[in-house]
Amino acid sequence: MKKQVNTIINAAGRAVPTEVNGKPVIPYKGVGQHRPEGNKYGPPISTCIDFPDDGSKLIATLKEALIAAGLKDGMTISTHHHFRNGDVIANQIFDIAAELGIKNLVWFPSASFDCHTPLIKYLEDGTIHHIEGSMNGQLGRVTSAGKMQGVGVLRSHGGRYQAVQDGEVKIDIAVIAAPTADSFGNANGLDGPAACGLLGFALADAQYASKVIVVTDHLVPFPCWPWQIQGNYVDHVVQVEQVGIPEKIVSGTTQVTKSPDRLFLAGLTAKFCEEAGIIRDGFSFQAGSGGTALSIGIYFAEMLKAKGMKSRFARGGSNAYLVKMLEDGLVEYILDGQTFDLEGVRSMRENPTHVDTSPFTSYNYHSKGNFAQLVDVVILGATEVDVHFNANVVTHSDGVLLHGIGGWQNCLFAKCTILPIPLFRDRIPVIREEVTTLCGPGELIDVIVTERGIAINPLRKDLLDKLKGSSLPIRTIRELKDEAEKICGIPAAVQFEEEIVAVVKWVDGTVIDCVRKVR
Amino acid sequence: MKKQVNTIINAAGRAVPTEVNGKPVIPYKGVGQHRPEGNKYGPPISTCIDFPDDGSKLIATLKEALIAAGLKDGMTISTHHHFRNGDVIANQIFDIAAELGIKNLVWFPSASFDCHTPLIKYLEDGTIHHIEGSMNGQLGRVTSAGKMQGVGVLRSHGGRYQAVQDGEVKIDIAVIAAPTADSFGNANGLDGPAACGLLGFALADAQYASKVIVVTDHLVPFPCWPWQIQGNYVDHVVQVEQVGIPEKIVSGTTQVTKSPDRLFLAGLTAKFCEEAGIIRDGFSFQAGSGGTALSIGIYFAEMLKAKGMKSRFARGGSNAYLVKMLEDGLVEYILDGQTFDLEGVRSMRENPTHVDTSPFTSYNYHSKGNFAQLVDVVILGATEVDVHFNANVVTHSDGVLLHGIGGWQNCLFAKCTILPIPLFRDRIPVIREEVTTLCGPGELIDVIVTERGIAINPLRKDLLDKLKGSSLPIRTIRELKDEAEKICGIPAAVQFEEEIVAVVKWVDGTVIDCVRKVR
Repeated sequence: MKKQVNTIINAAGRAVPTEVNGKPVIPYKGVGQHRPEGNKYGPPISTCIDFPDDGSKLIATLKEALIAAGLKDGMTISTHHHFRNGDVIANQIFDIAAELGIKNLVWFPSASFDCHTPLIKYLEDGTIHHIEGSMNGQLGRVTSAGKMQGVGVLRSHGGRYQAVQDGEVKIDIAVIAAPTADSFGNANGLDGPAACGLLGFALADAQYASKVIVVTDHLVPFPCWPWQIQGNYVDHVVQVEQVGIPEKIVSGTTQVTKSPDRLFLAGLTAKFCEEAGIIRDGFSFQAGSGGTALSIGIYFAEMLKAKGMKSRFARGGSNAYLVKMLEDGLVEYILDGQTFDLEGVRSMRENPTHVDTSPFTSYNYHSKGNFAQLVDVVILGATEVDVHFNANVVTHSDGVLLHGIGGWQNCLFAKCTILPIPLFRDRIPVIREEVTTLCGPGELIDVIVTERGIAINPLRKDLLDKLKGSSLPIRTIRELKDEAEKICGIPAAVQFEEEIVAVVKWVDGTVIDCVRKVR
Repeated sequence: MKKQVNTIINAAGRAVPTEVNGKPVIPYKGVGQHRPEGNKYGPPISTCIDFPDDGSKLIATLKEALIAAGLKDGMTISTHHHFRNGDVIANQIFDIAAELGIKNLVWFPSASFDCHTPLIKYLEDGTIHHIEGSMNGQLGRVTSAGKMQGVGVLRSHGGRYQAVQDGEVKIDIAVIAAPTADSFGNANGLDGPAACGLLGFALADAQYASKVIVVTDHLVPFPCWPWQIQGNYVDHVVQVEQVGIPEKIVSGTTQVTKSPDRLFLAGLTAKFCEEAGIIRDGFSFQAGSGGTALSIGIYFAEMLKAKGMKSRFARGGSNAYLVKMLEDGLVEYILDGQTFDLEGVRSMRENPTHVDTSPFTSYNYHSKGNFAQLVDVVILGATEVDVHFNANVVTHSDGVLLHGIGGWQNCLFAKCTILPIPLFRDRIPVIREEVTTLCGPGELIDVIVTERGIAINPLRKDLLDKLKGSSLPIRTIRELKDEAEKICGIPAAVQFEEEIVAVVKWVDGTVIDCVRKVR
């Protein structure tokens, strides 16, 4: 039974708890309104005295490594998601913990996937107290049903780095599954049978965790270069049979769509960018995960080719289409945060201008700038948008938690944020009076593209001016909402219980909204 | 007038002060005997709120940047030495500080060179209170004469990283001269008219300084890739006419010797390595700066070629000889800490296995191991060695401070440390009863190679056994000392005053020795 907590109305008008899992939290204050205080977290100082002279940190099994790292009740254990649905290590960690009778762990993944469904039993038996990270699919359903002992904490990729850097989350043990490593702990994702491209999501974990375990199925002699993860942060190295299933990197949200409806949306979005003057020589773009968004590259490539222009950089998630643009000379750099398919992996290995990045360089809001804000246009998905351009990516309109935030919040700081979304899904309107869960404030969302029209945020007078007289179907967001409701009817309100099952953090660590138990 | 301070006899038997520049210090406790406590330093948390949306941190002049960074009395200002004797920025910083009437600054360079001689006037007028870093050449003489207001602190490259990481030195403003940068502050040393290879010595400065200024004469559009320095750490970017003089990277200590005596020493050292079984397929080596040491590569190359073997990695300082070994396939990787000539710069730009490293990966003792300890054999210089194999690199036998430590102390942790030294220099014996200044404890120094014989540290019974029956002139260190004294006579003791002008830190931050004012 969860403790009842006090709530407060935050700057977005949402009732959010004042403490989460027994720790006080700061309510959202508005975009750019929360100023952090104090200093970054410094992990314990290590010394070479405690590490072998010959540099080899090999230990026989993951279990022995976890014991050597001091695994005990209440610890925070982190993993990365570069294998996406092909991760095999996270489940093993908690199998071991359960076998050892360890309780109340916090799992701090950079994202979760269907492959983690077996962990539900550990949420139920108390091996895992709660998850800080995405609760996707079945894990989300279980969370929404109130079956997790603690309160889930959803963060963006940048917010995850920020939380670790600022000491909001102290990782006790980081387990880094690595496609290639040496016995000193240097590791990368480029080579080996389970090559996944990069390991950037594990950077904060390596830098800030008290203990770091690298797990690999491809051990090479020192130096494992590039050392995307530096062995100087690593305590133990474990060799296993298989560290991940690279074929399963490709998940539903990372495939280019084949649906004609979605391709129509992608094409319309590209046309909008062209008319808005965004497509110019040297421009930059990012297409987030989700089939529609990812497909946008196909249209950008055609336009650039026709105009004899090239893009200075594309921010990935990389896929075969983006790689082709790079190799065709239409894009000078891919600044990649995660490879979305095996072509992305190959390209990162082979192309020096296919750059592996981390949430520190791309997304960390408590930094001296980050490069998300330099991107000219970002194309993202959403489960819902409301008439104030607020958007939701974590719950569906039935209130059930089904997705993580990923880099979505961080990307909103791009110079132009466009959400191509269908007007309705399964006869449920996507544009609402108010989003079920607020993930992104409307002031950062510039354009909504639907199959029946494009709505420009009234705050973007410059875009409205540019599109004046356009042949594109420019509408108001209310017009789009009304049209959807004419077809589908006005959706009934979701019935929630009082109990808060998860909170959604903003990029600065404040709480922008929460998710309640679904009745 | 310097305050008289208390001294204590440390574990090496040296009288060292208990405080330096008003701060308490820890006396050296022996190799691997000092265990650090607490956590790493965390610099102030930044926020994107304070940085421009378009990412451009350009500011017109270095003066404006220093003022914007809050330059004031007593601050610690850091610079790097990748331009070696071609640095032009450090002097400008203190010219500006003097012009602004700022006093009592601490200069924290990663090394100093003859080009910094103009700073002597700022030591004398109190603009600079003291230097923490190397005091080479004229700066050393001035320090030895007691003309610096504070006490100099000499650290190894690894010790410098350790001191910053552990919060012993808090850098207020880091100024990073960068051959290439973008307006966001991403920077590298690979390209541009002043290309110097890498910027690894500025890594700690970027990561931990409160304010970071990048100065460049070659501004490129975002992204400046590779971003050896990440713009996310950078506050201001200044464009100048000239950021450094790359031709002056080559200094006296970074040129391969042409002297037949020194080449003989280098050859003898290589033969020793061969007979000791160190040269084997996949071995690794490092040749420190100093003509003799650097020449060793010539002999290793011949041996490898003859044997059909290759080295897994060579630790650089890179020069033309090492680059040729890489390009001839005799070395698989160069793990480079600083380029010693323009061939090194070119190779780092062109060869993917010519790796830019930092003192964090190579040398930091307060880390989970570092790669200096993985090197099979390191060849280093010394100004003096004593009969206990202790060595000195910072003062000459006249007691005058003339050199920095560089990576020398850090390299002693290699599997075999060899010092090829002449038996005497200018008729002054190099092997002494006791070194003038203790920089490296004898237990870490394995072999002394002189033109008249090779002394193996009695602690290395394995090496003594291996060389039994060798045709090489194996002698005891006392025999070598006696021989030198037969030729040169017994040197007179140096006359020091009580006043401590500098302290020498060990790799763990403790004080191993101090340098006193020369009478």
